[in-house]
Amino acid sequence: MPLAQLRGVSGYLTPQQKNELIEKVTDAIVSVQGEGLRPVTWVLIDDVPEDQWVIGGRPVTAEDIRAVASGKK
Amino acid sequence: MPLAQLRGVSGYLTPQQKNELIEKVTDAIVSVQGEGLRPVTWVLIDDVPEDQWVIGGRPVTAEDIRAVASGKK
Amino acid sequence: MPLAQLRGVSGYLTPQQKNELIEKVTDAIVSVQGEGLRPVTWVLIDDVPEDQWVIGGRPVTAEDIRAVASGKK
Amino acid sequence: MPLAQLRGVSGYLTPQQKNELIEKVTDAIVSVQGEGLRPVTWVLIDDVPEDQWVIGGRPVTAEDIRAVASGKK
Amino acid sequence: MPLAQLRGVSGYLTPQQKNELIEKVTDAIVSVQGEGLRPVTWVLIDDVPEDQWVIGGRPVTAEDIRAVASGKK
Amino acid sequence: MPLAQLRGVSGYLTPQQKNELIEKVTDAIVSVQGEGLRPVTWVLIDDVPEDQWVIGGRPVTAEDIRAVASGKK
Repeated sequence: MPLAQLRGVSGYLTPQQKNELIEKVTDAIVSVQGEGLRPVTWVLIDDVPEDQWVIGGRPVTAEDIRAVASGKK
Repeated sequence: MPLAQLRGVSGYLTPQQKNELIEKVTDAIVSVQGEGLRPVTWVLIDDVPEDQWVIGGRPVTAEDIRAVASGKK
Repeated sequence: MPLAQLRGVSGYLTPQQKNELIEKVTDAIVSVQGEGLRPVTWVLIDDVPEDQWVIGGRPVTAEDIRAVASGKK
Repeated sequence: MPLAQLRGVSGYLTPQQKNELIEKVTDAIVSVQGEGLRPVTWVLIDDVPEDQWVIGGRPVTAEDIRAVASGKK
Repeated sequence: MPLAQLRGVSGYLTPQQKNELIEKVTDAIVSVQGEGLRPVTWVLIDDVPEDQWVIGGRPVTAEDIRAVASGKK
Repeated sequence: MPLAQLRGVSGYLTPQQKNELIEKVTDAIVSVQGEGLRPVTWVLIDDVPEDQWVIGGRPVTAEDIRAVASGKK
């Protein structure tokens, strides 16, 4: 009965990307744990507001994440 | 800066399967969120003892999960 | 010092039902752990948006839950 | 699809009391949310070691909790 | 790679106080764990709505917390 | 009623360092939120086993953290 909680900064992913994320994480889980567990595999997304996710004392914005993701930072 | 917490019943996955799970979930996350985020993608596994994960009032054992995974239940 | 975190899909429970849920869960906890612990029993409700709670790769809506709760699904 | 995470200090509850706790919390949840949800009601117990649960800067022991529960503190 | 999740009732802290809280908690963590870990120290704030944080069966409001904080309760 | 959950890799901090961490984080919290809240400030430490905390797909060991903390990595 796998349970995954995914956390990220609000505003970084679009709803469509969240759907894609959930689908791929579900596939990843059942590929290892067994396809029979798919109906009991729960995945939750818990967003954190931009100013409430802090690394090294500095809030992380969706903009920051885009820069890192694209290799600009 | 993606963060994933994966939960499951102790004793169901081998250490090798946990490694595989973590690798695949990491790949799933960065495939959607951006390969540049790989170095800041954190995945934690939090096991729950067999008798402390309960569904419908009944504790779930690793054995139960194996039965569901293989389609025998 | 018992701590309970209750999670559910936004929009399924009314505020009144949430109050009732919290009261009954608190009663359930102190009935087992000791009535003296009531003043230090914390219960939190953390809602998850409808499209961010996923089972078997499919988002769960408040509507889906109502159907299951009433035995129609 | 209700999900409850119950936390407490290791060594306070016996395994039998944990079973009773889980059963009563499950009953409390479905009594409000709908009996039809019982099979998809998940309850997890996550213990915290005695010296790692701290209130007001002071670690809480199972012994302390017993004293509070019985009204001696 | 320290990770801290801070929870509180919505509306008690101002955004400025949240910044101050995060900065001080980060400093506290790296003062013990090592200043070199600062860039990989993550702190998240997860607010809980006023009516969804319950102690002893009674919801806690930001007003209640102000009264306790100032010693009026 | 502040609540903090601190997570780290098992075996990195000694019990004495954990005590110091908890004390300093409690102080940090009440210095911002109000000294009157100290008796209702809860701090939990949840360790993660070495091979179950993964960054960028690679498990993090206590040894790795020591290297980063001391600036050798």
